[in-house]
Parts: sequence; structure tokens; C-alpha cells
Amino acid sequence: MTVDRRPASFVEPRATTVPRGELERRIGAFQARLRRDGVDAALVVQNADLYYLAGTVQQSHLLVPAEGEPVLFVRKTLERAREESGLAVIEPLPSLRQLGELVAERLGGPAATVGLELDVLPVAQFRRYEGLLPQARFVDVGAALVAQRAVKSPWEIERVEAAARVAAAVFERIPDILCEGLTEAAFAGLVEAQARALGHQGIIRMRAFNGEMFYGQLLTGTSGAVASFLDTPLAGMGLSPAVAQGVSFKPIGRGEPVVFDFVPVVDGYTADFTRIFTLGPLPDELVRAYDAARRAQAAVAACARPGVACRVVYETAVAVADEAGLGAYFMGHGAAQVRFVGHGVGLELDELPVLSPNDRPLEEGMVFALEPKFVFPGLGAIGIENTWRVTADGIERLTRAPEGIVVLQ
Amino acid sequence: MTVDRRPASFVEPRATTVPRGELERRIGAFQARLRRDGVDAALVVQNADLYYLAGTVQQSHLLVPAEGEPVLFVRKTLERAREESGLAVIEPLPSLRQLGELVAERLGGPAATVGLELDVLPVAQFRRYEGLLPQARFVDVGAALVAQRAVKSPWEIERVEAAARVAAAVFERIPDILCEGLTEAAFAGLVEAQARALGHQGIIRMRAFNGEMFYGQLLTGTSGAVASFLDTPLAGMGLSPAVAQGVSFKPIGRGEPVVFDFVPVVDGYTADFTRIFTLGPLPDELVRAYDAARRAQAAVAACARPGVACRVVYETAVAVADEAGLGAYFMGHGAAQVRFVGHGVGLELDELPVLSPNDRPLEEGMVFALEPKFVFPGLGAIGIENTWRVTADGIERLTRAPEGIVVLQ
Repeated sequence: MTVDRRPASFVEPRATTVPRGELERRIGAFQARLRRDGVDAALVVQNADLYYLAGTVQQSHLLVPAEGEPVLFVRKTLERAREESGLAVIEPLPSLRQLGELVAERLGGPAATVGLELDVLPVAQFRRYEGLLPQARFVDVGAALVAQRAVKSPWEIERVEAAARVAAAVFERIPDILCEGLTEAAFAGLVEAQARALGHQGIIRMRAFNGEMFYGQLLTGTSGAVASFLDTPLAGMGLSPAVAQGVSFKPIGRGEPVVFDFVPVVDGYTADFTRIFTLGPLPDELVRAYDAARRAQAAVAACARPGVACRVVYETAVAVADEAGLGAYFMGHGAAQVRFVGHGVGLELDELPVLSPNDRPLEEGMVFALEPKFVFPGLGAIGIENTWRVTADGIERLTRAPEGIVVLQ
Repeated sequence: MTVDRRPASFVEPRATTVPRGELERRIGAFQARLRRDGVDAALVVQNADLYYLAGTVQQSHLLVPAEGEPVLFVRKTLERAREESGLAVIEPLPSLRQLGELVAERLGGPAATVGLELDVLPVAQFRRYEGLLPQARFVDVGAALVAQRAVKSPWEIERVEAAARVAAAVFERIPDILCEGLTEAAFAGLVEAQARALGHQGIIRMRAFNGEMFYGQLLTGTSGAVASFLDTPLAGMGLSPAVAQGVSFKPIGRGEPVVFDFVPVVDGYTADFTRIFTLGPLPDELVRAYDAARRAQAAVAACARPGVACRVVYETAVAVADEAGLGAYFMGHGAAQVRFVGHGVGLELDELPVLSPNDRPLEEGMVFALEPKFVFPGLGAIGIENTWRVTADGIERLTRAPEGIVVLQ
């Protein structure tokens, strides 16, 4: 069998830059938060946050004063930062040693309280900043950025939709790729090649320390029931204990669920998507569980709207699983069961809101993956995952592929 | 044209676990270092270091006392950690809150000086440990682990060789894949599919904060001359400013260098490899530069051996470039030129030794990528990269593919 080598036609062969108005609104909201928290200025350095506030991941320190113009101090490369970023003031940072001086100059004196992304910044690098800005008291602004980024603009939602289209396009190619005897690893490679041609950026960003993800989890049969170190319902054996997740060298067989759990990322923005394929019919037990997963999704779709707490969403899904007598298999099994049914997606895969027993209310513009899944030891996993946006009065599905189990012969 | 979907036959369809003897030697050497540095115990948590010392990346804290038995405290999943790790003592960590108590119990009292990987550990997580072990003084052991990991065992070198074989096997398939008009992104996807079928683990680990890499840099023509945020000689446009490196939607043309800069990773271990393809002949200027890159490599191979400082290796390569009148284009151009000609590889892509003007001597068992490359603005990049091990009296090449420019029609 052959694989079409031509890239699909819907790809826009230009890089998307973040519009200046987007950056201004984001920085304005972040500055309001800095003022509320009594922070004089923030220095933002992590790739996802930099891209969010400056539209570039060039090696930089973004100085955001509580009021006034932000400045992007760029180490490498200045030219490219100026091309990519819509910010007005982009200056060279010839050496990190000059950072304290440059910051003081911009702020009209040394900053008293400086925000850093302490949730991701390594201790050694933090200590360098302590040396470079000796008069500063440092506070965390990582949590504030994560909270702000949970609510997406219409422009950002369009980016997530573009990612969702890549997942849907790859989904449509699966019937031409999937066949008995192919290893999970070889299957994944062919699926990933499709995604690449369609503009998948490859890199998937996670905020959590030690967080790692490679395209998703294409797990078949018993692989779907193998848990691992990440806080995910599915994990898989992986090719060795060195990665301990994802595809293995297991050949794909007939009558087993092929979980197509796929993370498309385009222009920095992530969606999350799961559908089920099978070569020949599946055991009834799995089909019944899949129906329960779809009912759990429908129950959430009926109740989720701005103001509803994540806890309610979580409990709504769990109630459907319990009602079906499948609570023990919902979102993992035994000690590996996870206590959430979904998570925010955006510039990182592990964003807010987390659809777990917590009191954060949904807000219009939030984007999350809802992934009711069941895991049966020794048998496999089954479930569905879509990416949704929170509208003014409900939620809307952004991943638009058909939802039935795809039975191939 | 078609792509062979069958995985190559040399793949060992079993996960490789780290032998117990390896772990014992590694832990013994690390403990000697702890004693020398006056550290009572280390808590190791980062994926690459955990895999190195425990043979697993399951969510764990590895307690390594300066003397006596290490204990792996596992949060998720205990069963899998016990299967994967050759350590003798593997215990559950029901909650992080119990860490202080469990550590004190094992050490027979609270530890005075505790080592953490402060080069990678986020500040917020560090502060949790400060709360959990209030009597401890914390010191960095990340640098010590990085230094220790620079020298590989014969078993580790076999793993790097396995990775190198994947690069060589993919290299052999390129003539069937490369064709005019294919976008870099589509080309990359097809190349990566081959690697996946051959057992490439996907995930590439980097230790540097904000370090990101996806399979390498398959850059063609002018893309090879586009610098970016990483400290690498080549970068590429990437598919958008959100990633800002790697392949673009540029179609591959005739008479331009196709840089196959590829990072294979198998069983956690990394190699690094570059060869040049072209559709039709290349401009003479590029061919001359390629010859200079090979001469730079040969000059390094003639001088590198245990005891030789990295500075000497670096200067040897630079001297060849200067002699060829190409110093201004060596390892990048203008402000984006980097000051190294290679880097250690292993469980991470950015290991020691760095072949830059520094005084670290080469040691037997070190493994590094040597990558003399030239970058010509508006024209492209060209060069060669092999992965080498330091032997008792020289260096030996581990990436065994032919070294000539591959001219396809």
C-alpha cells in the first residue's frame, strides 16, 4: 500500500504572526493583574509565555512594567524577534550581565517587586536573577499567566480550530493507513507524516516539570490499558522504559480498539482529539463502554456553561460512568485512575481549566479537551475526546470529525 | 512514489531495561561524589537523571544517601517502576507530604545537606521541598550528575550505536523519499515515519531551560541559513514563529543543499548526524565548503584523545575553516555564529563536553557530536556531523554512513 506524499491543499504556506492588537490586549490584562498584585514589573522568559505576550520565542527577556510600554530584550536573534513580534520596543541584550542595568533604566530606578515565572524557572537561573537585580523582591507571576491564558480570544480560538482541522484531516486518512500486523510504532510514524505535511509543528509544549508528549497516544488493544508516570488516563508501554509512554512494537490485531488519541499543534496552538478505529467488530463490552463515554460527553455538553464549576462538570461525567456500572474503569483503573475528565488546551497541552473536583468556574472563551475514557485491564481502552470552547451560554465543539467507532475490514 | 510501510527487520521488538550492574556502578560513582562534596543525600527527580540512576522515568523521588542503599519512592506507577528498574528497594510514595518523614526514616534522622537538581528544578517545586524538609540545607547535584553522565559505559555506548544505526538506516531511505517540489514539512514527515518504524522514541530530551528539538533540522537551500533562538549553527524558519526552528513549507528545489541533520533516539540514548543530499549538482562554493568541513573533522579526529582540552578541539576546527578563508561562515554567520563545534550526547542532546573554548579535558568514554558546518546567507548551509566516542588513545566514529555529498537526479 502507498501513502500520498503530497501535502493537503488547505495548508496556508505562510507563518502566522500574532496580531499587534492581540499582544496589546494580553499585555494590558497582564499589567492590570500586576497592579492588583502590587508587582512593579515582570520579566517573562518561558517559551509559551513569551510567545503569548510577545509573539516570538526568540531568546529574550520580556520586561512588562505594571504601567507603560513593555520592552523585549533579545539575546538571539534580534532580527528575527523584530520580524516576528508585534511589540513596539525590541532592544538587544548583548549580555545577561547588563539585564539589571537595562531594567533599572527602563523603570527609572531599580524595581522593588519583580514577577518571574517561578512555576517553571529553574532554581539556578532564578539565583542568577537574584544576583543581577539585588534590590528586587521576587514573586511568582507564572500562576497569573496560566490563569489569564485559560481564557482565549476569538483569534486564539481560530488557531485551536486550525489545529482541530489537522486532527480531522489525519483522521480521514487513517482507513488508508491502518492494517493488521503493522506495529504501533510504524502506524504512528505514518499517521505523524500526514500531520507533518498538514503543518503540525511537531513540538508539543507542556508546563508541568517532567511533562512530555509526542503527538499523543496511538494505542491498540492491550496497550490502551497500560498506565504510566503521566497524569493521563491512557499512557501505553512506549518503546522502552526510557520514554514509558506511547506506541510500542506491538502489532495491530483484529477486533481490538485502536485508540487514535492525537494532539495537533499548529501555530503554537493545541487541540486534543480521540476517536476509535477497529479492524473487524469490537467486543460488546467495549462498544457499551464507548456508548457510555458518548453519554458522559453529552451530559457535560448539556450542563457546561459560564459559571458552572469544574467540579460539576467532573461529577456529571462520573455519574454517567457510575450509572453504566463502569465507574471502576472510568479514566483509568485501580491506582492509575486519574481524577479529571478533561483539561484546558492552548499554547500548552496542560492548561486550565482542569475538569476535576475543583471550584474554578467555567468562563466564556475557555477552551478544553473533554475526554471520557474507560480502561479495561488486559482488554484495552476506549473513549472519545473533543476540544470545546465555552460560549456565552454553553459549550461548542471545535473538533468536528464524526464520532462513531470506525469499523474497517 | 510509495513508502515502504514495513518496519525494518533489525528492530529488536523488546524494551531494553538498564542492567542492574549499570545502575550499581552509576550510583556508586554518584555516592562517591556526594561524599567528596559533603552531601548527606540527594533526591533525584528529573526524567533523564532518574532514568540514568534508576532505569525508569516513573513519577518518583530517588533518594541516594552518601552511603548505603538508594530508595526509589514512587508516586505513579509503582508496579511499572518495579518492572522497569533494577534497583533493590522500590517503595510507594502515597503522598508528597510524607516525603520528609520517609526520607528521615531511611536516613535515621533528618538530613543536614540534601542535593537537588537545582539546574533544572523549578523554584516553586524547590520551595515545596524546603517546606517538606525544613531542617535541610539544599545544594545542587545537577552539575555533578551532568559531569558524571558525560563519561559513558560500554553499555551506554552500545545504546548510542543503536541510535546511530537508526540514523544510518533512515539515511539510506532518503533517495526514495526526496523529490523536487516536496515541502520541507512533508519531506520531514516521511523521513520521521521511517525513523519511527525503526524504533525512534520520538521524545528528544534537552536539559537547557526552553530547550526544544524535534527530530533535528531538515533544512533545504536558503532555510539552512536562517538562524534562531537556540544555540545551534542551523535552525531554520520553522512552520511559524511559535516554534521558530526546523522545517518550513518551502518546496525543495534543484541544485540546493538538503541538510539531513537528524537526531536519532533509541532506548533514551541520542546520537547526532548530518549528511548532505542534493537534486542535481551544487554550486562549487558549497562543495568547497563541504570539503573544508570534512578536513576540519579529519583534523579533530587526528588530535582528539583523552587529556586534550575542548579548547584545542575547537581551535583545531576553526583553524581549518580560517585556512580555507571561510572563518566568517563557520558555525553560523554574523551575530548568529556559535562558539562551539560539537557537544556531548547521551540521555540528553545537550550534554558535556561542549567543544568550545573551555578547558575541560576529553576523557575516555565521552561521546560527542562533532558538527563542522558552514552557513552562507541567502544560499544555505552545508557541513557534516558524526557522533564519536573517546577511546583510550583517540576517537572512534559511531555514525557509520558514507560521508560524500549524495547527488540525486
